[in-house]
Amino acid sequence: MDCDFISLATPGVQGLQPYVPGKPADELERELGLRQVVKLASNENPLGPSPVALAAAQQALGSLHLYPDASGYRLKTALQRVHGLAPEQLTLGNGSNDVLELLARAFIRPGDEVIYSEYAFLVYPIVTQASGATAVVTPARNWGHDLAAMQAAITERTRLIFIANPNNPTGTWLSETELTAFLDAVPASVIVVLDEAYTEYVQAPGFPDGLALLARYPNLVVTRTFSKAWGLAGLRCGYAAADPVITDLLNRVRQPFNVAGPSLAAAEAVLEDHDYLARTIATNSAGMAQLEQGFRGLGLDYIPSVGNFICVDLGRPAGPLYQQLLQLGIILRPVGNYRMPNHLRVSIGLDVENARCLQGLAEVLSA
Amino acid sequence: MDCDFISLATPGVQGLQPYVPGKPADELERELGLRQVVKLASNENPLGPSPVALAAAQQALGSLHLYPDASGYRLKTALQRVHGLAPEQLTLGNGSNDVLELLARAFIRPGDEVIYSEYAFLVYPIVTQASGATAVVTPARNWGHDLAAMQAAITERTRLIFIANPNNPTGTWLSETELTAFLDAVPASVIVVLDEAYTEYVQAPGFPDGLALLARYPNLVVTRTFSKAWGLAGLRCGYAAADPVITDLLNRVRQPFNVAGPSLAAAEAVLEDHDYLARTIATNSAGMAQLEQGFRGLGLDYIPSVGNFICVDLGRPAGPLYQQLLQLGIILRPVGNYRMPNHLRVSIGLDVENARCLQGLAEVLSA
Repeated sequence: MDCDFISLATPGVQGLQPYVPGKPADELERELGLRQVVKLASNENPLGPSPVALAAAQQALGSLHLYPDASGYRLKTALQRVHGLAPEQLTLGNGSNDVLELLARAFIRPGDEVIYSEYAFLVYPIVTQASGATAVVTPARNWGHDLAAMQAAITERTRLIFIANPNNPTGTWLSETELTAFLDAVPASVIVVLDEAYTEYVQAPGFPDGLALLARYPNLVVTRTFSKAWGLAGLRCGYAAADPVITDLLNRVRQPFNVAGPSLAAAEAVLEDHDYLARTIATNSAGMAQLEQGFRGLGLDYIPSVGNFICVDLGRPAGPLYQQLLQLGIILRPVGNYRMPNHLRVSIGLDVENARCLQGLAEVLSA
Repeated sequence: MDCDFISLATPGVQGLQPYVPGKPADELERELGLRQVVKLASNENPLGPSPVALAAAQQALGSLHLYPDASGYRLKTALQRVHGLAPEQLTLGNGSNDVLELLARAFIRPGDEVIYSEYAFLVYPIVTQASGATAVVTPARNWGHDLAAMQAAITERTRLIFIANPNNPTGTWLSETELTAFLDAVPASVIVVLDEAYTEYVQAPGFPDGLALLARYPNLVVTRTFSKAWGLAGLRCGYAAADPVITDLLNRVRQPFNVAGPSLAAAEAVLEDHDYLARTIATNSAGMAQLEQGFRGLGLDYIPSVGNFICVDLGRPAGPLYQQLLQLGIILRPVGNYRMPNHLRVSIGLDVENARCLQGLAEVLSA
């Protein structure tokens, strides 16, 4: 080789460890020659596509040779109708991963500090590291965010704070009272990113709606996704809602055609599929109860969760058990990279999928 | 407002002017109440979708609730079969815009220099500016890249060189002899990005295949897109082919799910649609001849192009004529932001579209 290209990369990228996704079901099928693999590893919607979204995407495929609308006019209009958000407050993303990255790229430079909690979503450390900034990781409290510790960690160099509500992978949540007390205390020059990827699942009283808080806190940015409760993970669409000045900066770094045409159409349509969302929430509540009961029956501890996933404590290193479950055609999510070596994260599936997961766990734990 | 958020943005982003896309046809229809708008502004494929790609995308919609394959296994396998590229050489992007941006983010930091030519694709200045690097813009020669000037501009701080072949918006091209002489002279530590977005259209003898040059030049990165000749602009898929070490760095900054599921499926399928590509090239050649002849008939000069677009010189400021053409339902592309104020770029359309464009030009020029 003529040149050490790694030394040419930016310092942030040199130290970057890419995100490791859940193992795709068809990959496991290829590798082990298995069929009927159950994947409960990526917090996908087990109901399959919303028929309304599917029809809209199908229709949009007719113009797949044309660039998508770079302004996302129709989707923004739908978000305005449903959530009362003005188009000037909206930044569309290729999944909410994209808007989280846009936030880092617009506001973080080397030497800045970014605060997030222990056990927070891995995209926060990745975008922080890629920008060459300093991560300030506050210890968790009962697996959740310790807002007092996060507040105490703010310095003059703090630029962004990432908070997920509920948090992935732990499923813990912050009440409106806790969150607004924190937001009241954060300096106006520190941007707080409230990641609400799983907000639609939450039934807990006192759970805040970040969008309703935007008017009170100009430094608040709320991110949402169509990948979870709305069931569009394969189409990649999410958004950030924020102050128009912040939004303008995010849109400057946004790639003009960052969301595909059929994805814009499906996202716009699914916002009206109230039946799909209701079935999604009902399926999730039932599946959560089924898994909790099953874990208790197996004598396993778990972290109570308000999301569409739950972390179960296997009481020993989870890696080998994860591998044995793969052999049975069951894909769960290891969370060792979150420093939770004894847990596996289980996405809430359909009744039969949850049952197979519990049966598989019983089998490998007794082996 | 409590805080000047603009001052919080990185210096690169503070000065950033976002890319201005071609005006969408439905936007013009909304604004003017027009029907049957002809849009020849975004270098889209006028044939509409490849039926093979459309069928593959439709089938893939069935799993739109599942995350796409983050590794792009099947598309990379298809690219290996068609182009002999190893998966370790490939970085998939949300359009080639995405991989151009990944290159900037992986390799450019403030203080670095990036070389590109006058009249080069606007995404190069945008990604350079966003990274806070210094743009070194070499003057064009006959509307094309002056490789001698680009070579002379290389300093110890040069990190990347962007070259489009053929170039957009001018349609000029570099021969294999010119390009390899340049690559021979570039230091091994300077990465040369060869943007081949329009390569499939080029019929000129002596035109190089960048992919075939990768083995000789480890510092060469070739980018390609499915948005142009392959007709998948609405699905957002492109790729970079490069040395495995460079590829590893690009994949570290790549968002894991940056290409949607139906897009991966359509791109994989369209690579086998030889009939579509043949019809695309034939339509383009015929349309190019039709427009050239029409321009000559109108007494208009133009820049000879090997792409699927052509820049016509209106001999006076093009802005007012662009606006008058909009009133007639004809969308062409102003290139004043490329410092070509008297030109409009015309995408090659179907026979009837080209005819309407020529008729519209005749009308507004004689008004």
